[in-house]
Amino acid sequence: MFTPRPIGFVSSPYTDKAAIPKGLGARHEAEDVLKILPEFEVGLTNIEGFSHLMVLWVFDRSGGFDLIGKPPADDRPHGVFATRSPRRPNPIGLTVVELLRREGESLHVLGVDMLDGTPILDIKPYLSSIPLEKLRRGWLAEAEARNE
Amino acid sequence: MFTPRPIGFVSSPYTDKAAIPKGLGARHEAEDVLKILPEFEVGLTNIEGFSHLMVLWVFDRSGGFDLIGKPPADDRPHGVFATRSPRRPNPIGLTVVELLRREGESLHVLGVDMLDGTPILDIKPYLSSIPLEKLRRGWLAEAEARNE
Repeated sequence: MFTPRPIGFVSSPYTDKAAIPKGLGARHEAEDVLKILPEFEVGLTNIEGFSHLMVLWVFDRSGGFDLIGKPPADDRPHGVFATRSPRRPNPIGLTVVELLRREGESLHVLGVDMLDGTPILDIKPYLSSIPLEKLRRGWLAEAEARNE
Repeated sequence: MFTPRPIGFVSSPYTDKAAIPKGLGARHEAEDVLKILPEFEVGLTNIEGFSHLMVLWVFDRSGGFDLIGKPPADDRPHGVFATRSPRRPNPIGLTVVELLRREGESLHVLGVDMLDGTPILDIKPYLSSIPLEKLRRGWLAEAEARNE
């Protein structure tokens, strides 16, 4: 395997998990900054051309995992791999952000749902989407239908 | 940080990196299996309802990283975080697969581009897509246009 190391840190207004919008209809539309460490800045070359990025990060204030749990969007239990729960065997988070602009080692983005100071593991360009008509969203779609 | 552990392994026909379709127009349409370890199987509960999954995995046969490199799709260099290069500071791969069916601890999927035996770190449901008209694909779109 490998030893995870931060390539940078999230700068966001969220210092408390309770403040992060979660569950059905959550909106993460504040402009925040992904601050990349100076030694990795060259790795951002030509990232400006992408509108959206996939950010991998560490749930660094979460400990342990549950194989089954109730997500905020539903009152029924689901397996951890069918949810975005922070309590995962490998505590890695994945967030798609919209890239507004790059200023040196700072990426200004929309869509952050990470706590301030969250370690970033990786950034990848978002290259293609699944067409909406092909996407089935399992228990989440069912929970949304029940709550309508 | 944390110590990565496999939650399962990829079973695919690719035993050699050269055999994996890469770059422009790559197609990964063989049916393959994500085999989850028995102790994590309960974490798959209700995953059947999702059509697409995000799979996080380890580039376990790659060592070291390059901050700049030429991807197979282009003859110009780009930063590692603007590419899907295996030679990353944290050697984590991300592949979106289509879930065909679950058989116990085996997920039968389309879209695998990992080598046989690749360790899987995490599986997350694919919940939403970026609309095509909002997606800009930077150097990749430019390279495609030059190659047309």
